[in-house]
Amino acid sequence: MDISKIKFDDKGLVPVIAQDYKDGTVLMLAYMNKESLQKTLESKEMVYWSRSRKVLWHKGDTSGHIQKVKELYYDCDGDALVAKIEQVGDIACHTGNRSCFFNKLI
Amino acid sequence: MDISKIKFDDKGLVPVIAQDYKDGTVLMLAYMNKESLQKTLESKEMVYWSRSRKVLWHKGDTSGHIQKVKELYYDCDGDALVAKIEQVGDIACHTGNRSCFFNKLI
Repeated sequence: MDISKIKFDDKGLVPVIAQDYKDGTVLMLAYMNKESLQKTLESKEMVYWSRSRKVLWHKGDTSGHIQKVKELYYDCDGDALVAKIEQVGDIACHTGNRSCFFNKLI
Repeated sequence: MDISKIKFDDKGLVPVIAQDYKDGTVLMLAYMNKESLQKTLESKEMVYWSRSRKVLWHKGDTSGHIQKVKELYYDCDGDALVAKIEQVGDIACHTGNRSCFFNKLI
């Protein structure tokens, strides 16, 4: 898989939007470094870089809430990704919510 | 509007996912600083911070492709936003594509 078009930032990261492949709900935004992107492409399961723990983070390893990749896109500038995923357990957020975006400003 | 829960990063920015309010298509990912978020909340039109031009960027100012905010959410950590928007002209990307995410890896 050619990932040469992906531009990682000055911390070696690219933001990744995880979107439910069935109904389009945006579930979370997290980050990948090159290694986690490669592992995601190989395994077809979302592997992020945890900025807080500073480790590769195979989503669902402890919770069981694995994310199976259906489609993966990068944007016109190559500096953001959208993953259309199947969310095992239908819960993406560590709070127990389906989506991390449950706080409303407008 | 209380934006004290929003955590801006070490560059003073927060990533913002712009999503079509009708069909859920993710149109683009861009960034806001505090001022652009405040202007967005006041005007109900998306105002980003352009990282390349280093200016406030009222989306659509030159293209006419304004984004009208229908709903705005922040995530569990307060470090990412989702805006559900009405995309005037139905084109969000400077390439002329509807969405910036038209390049497929998987």
